[in-house]
Amino acid sequence: MYNKNMDKRISEKVINRLTLYHCILQDYIESGTEYISSKQIATLLHIDDSQVRKDINILNKSGKSRVGYIVKELKKSIETTLGFSKTKKAYIIGAGNLGMALAKYDNFTSYGLNIISLFDNDKNKIGGTINDKEILDINTLPKFTQEHGVEIAILTVPGKYAQQTADFIIKANIKYIWNFTPTVLNVPDDVQVWNENLMGNFLQFTYNI
Amino acid sequence: MYNKNMDKRISEKVINRLTLYHCILQDYIESGTEYISSKQIATLLHIDDSQVRKDINILNKSGKSRVGYIVKELKKSIETTLGFSKTKKAYIIGAGNLGMALAKYDNFTSYGLNIISLFDNDKNKIGGTINDKEILDINTLPKFTQEHGVEIAILTVPGKYAQQTADFIIKANIKYIWNFTPTVLNVPDDVQVWNENLMGNFLQFTYNI
Repeated sequence: MYNKNMDKRISEKVINRLTLYHCILQDYIESGTEYISSKQIATLLHIDDSQVRKDINILNKSGKSRVGYIVKELKKSIETTLGFSKTKKAYIIGAGNLGMALAKYDNFTSYGLNIISLFDNDKNKIGGTINDKEILDINTLPKFTQEHGVEIAILTVPGKYAQQTADFIIKANIKYIWNFTPTVLNVPDDVQVWNENLMGNFLQFTYNI
Repeated sequence: MYNKNMDKRISEKVINRLTLYHCILQDYIESGTEYISSKQIATLLHIDDSQVRKDINILNKSGKSRVGYIVKELKKSIETTLGFSKTKKAYIIGAGNLGMALAKYDNFTSYGLNIISLFDNDKNKIGGTINDKEILDINTLPKFTQEHGVEIAILTVPGKYAQQTADFIIKANIKYIWNFTPTVLNVPDDVQVWNENLMGNFLQFTYNI
């Protein structure tokens, strides 16, 4: 699951908070607000002001001025620090409800994830487009992967097909799998899997309800 | 975001791992295997055997025998410990691709989350059903909430409608919001929000790609 060799320069929790700040800054830009204080971010997220300031200090240039942080600069700092500017190509395997939902999620692009197509084996879906992305025949995946140099696959097929699909895309040279299926994949050591463990995440939330 | 008064009896990371083990055990049951060792779980997840054993020791009854853990008993232990047996009612707001995908996610039920309906304002969707759940008119939500005693809402509306929708369901007495929208919600202190921060999660993974 986790590559032990990963350089954990920034902890997972900080990465998570920084993306939430980025979300807020996006809203502020859309509403035309120029400045934001750490206190405003903290209040929206129900966290401590000092935590926000600590996180922001990790960024190289945070654009702090007398009246607060300059929204556009702070947003850019987060993008640079989290590596958004390095756009990474990806494709979605499985054009079902979840695959289509992810294909429509425009936020990914602002986070450096460029989803360039979807793949499916359903003849009724192949050839369609969603959010300007084409749904391609899964049999063309190996050639496509090579031609476009894609390394990241987002897996949204039914659980019972997850392992065989993973085997297929790994054979086509995929190195990173964002796994939305409710199964744990068996992969070689040079392939990294991120289990989008929706229930695990939610249970952290509801455990004490 | 996080309720500081939450009793963190089990850490978030352990909860996450336990749900992954639960996934694996489900697969083992489906393939008819009776026993599993911590080493088998560890190998599948590319983590240490000792970590798995440490996690399992947290459970009350792990069903360990000479030949390994009894799969069905271990699965039940995890369910009891993580509170799956306490079923919690929830509904989905927004019957778009993401809402429909979540409605079809049968795993939720085994984790104690009982999604009983969806709500939307689109007349073309209202009255439809997905996975035996009805898509209802959002205007009927307050009455429905009261009649069924629902406390958890899963929010999958477009970002620009997120805040007003949250205000509406909070007024109808929703206390827990699983937020799939790419915005940060402004909520009163007695309401808890879990931001399903897909990009934040994924960035923890791709940060070092």
